[in-house]
Amino acid sequence: MYRIKLLALSFIFFSGLASAETVSKAIVIQGNGDKPQFERALKLASNMHEVLTTSKFEIVVFGPTVKLLTEDSDELPLIQKVQNEGIKIVACGRSMTTDQVKKTDLIAGVTVTAFGAVHIVNRQKQGWQYFRP
Amino acid sequence: MYRIKLLALSFIFFSGLASAETVSKAIVIQGNGDKPQFERALKLASNMHEVLTTSKFEIVVFGPTVKLLTEDSDELPLIQKVQNEGIKIVACGRSMTTDQVKKTDLIAGVTVTAFGAVHIVNRQKQGWQYFRP
Amino acid sequence: MYRIKLLALSFIFFSGLASAETVSKAIVIQGNGDKPQFERALKLASNMHEVLTTSKFEIVVFGPTVKLLTEDSDELPLIQKVQNEGIKIVACGRSMTTDQVKKTDLIAGVTVTAFGAVHIVNRQKQGWQYFRP
Repeated sequence: MYRIKLLALSFIFFSGLASAETVSKAIVIQGNGDKPQFERALKLASNMHEVLTTSKFEIVVFGPTVKLLTEDSDELPLIQKVQNEGIKIVACGRSMTTDQVKKTDLIAGVTVTAFGAVHIVNRQKQGWQYFRP
Repeated sequence: MYRIKLLALSFIFFSGLASAETVSKAIVIQGNGDKPQFERALKLASNMHEVLTTSKFEIVVFGPTVKLLTEDSDELPLIQKVQNEGIKIVACGRSMTTDQVKKTDLIAGVTVTAFGAVHIVNRQKQGWQYFRP
Repeated sequence: MYRIKLLALSFIFFSGLASAETVSKAIVIQGNGDKPQFERALKLASNMHEVLTTSKFEIVVFGPTVKLLTEDSDELPLIQKVQNEGIKIVACGRSMTTDQVKKTDLIAGVTVTAFGAVHIVNRQKQGWQYFRP
């Protein structure tokens, strides 16, 4: 009986550690700011991904910067390059409403989260690392 | 005897998890910057609080931005709105000395921490999420 | 036999806690930005170090700001003051390549990391607190 309890405890404990290890290999990058700053965020994520090949990356875009995520954006080539590397671009739904960007306007593959800042905080709670260029 | 040890261990372990869960429901928002940036921090905290209703929020204000925390500040209505929602505004004592803001000048309810940046770092150690708009 | 297992488990568990406690006493400060912002980062680290005397501090400098880390920099006196207090200045190797700053140009004691943003993310994974002035 004791043996069973011990095993159960070890299992919970070590699975906890294992999952922390997994989620710590993920980085969320804040993508708001002016155009040059947004470009820096995109290039930075791309460069970091080259080095940290097994990490997941998300660039969370909010504020007026969501206007740079539409199909007619000057940033289209760079955004597509970054997406092809497996980096996710996540747009803030609240900012899209404020700046009248529709979901159908967005570059293919860009996903929408209800609230960008809340998403960033939740990702930190899940063990993702936060970086603001 | 083994049984007692086992129980003691589980208790420590699970209480550890429980307390981590509690403190992770708290967010500290960095509130320095120019006037529009400070307003964005206030509005953002208010909007986040609408969604994360059970989380605690603190806006830590430092640098010359502490001058916007006085009773004659243009930001008074917005600060009071945010405070009424249960969001705490915390002013950096060092910045107040530098910018000659007295404790008696501050809007009612604004608290003072000795050193804003140290407070933010300590909050992170306690498991609060850090967000810089 | 049960006793041995129990002790082994406690050891792993408590050593985990102990090491988390140790690494949490370390702060990495992001040091990119314009000249006044970099000076603020240096002064902030120095002031924080006065209060958090047992914490380790690193200022990770990247982007064009690495040009302020050379022997002929206006920031030399402030950088040396900060270094004498035990605060480490870490330069981003990628930014140094981009901005043509050679390792031999750097102020004595400034160390180089291959990729500044990756270093910051790794420090967070190791339990360091992240602060961006």
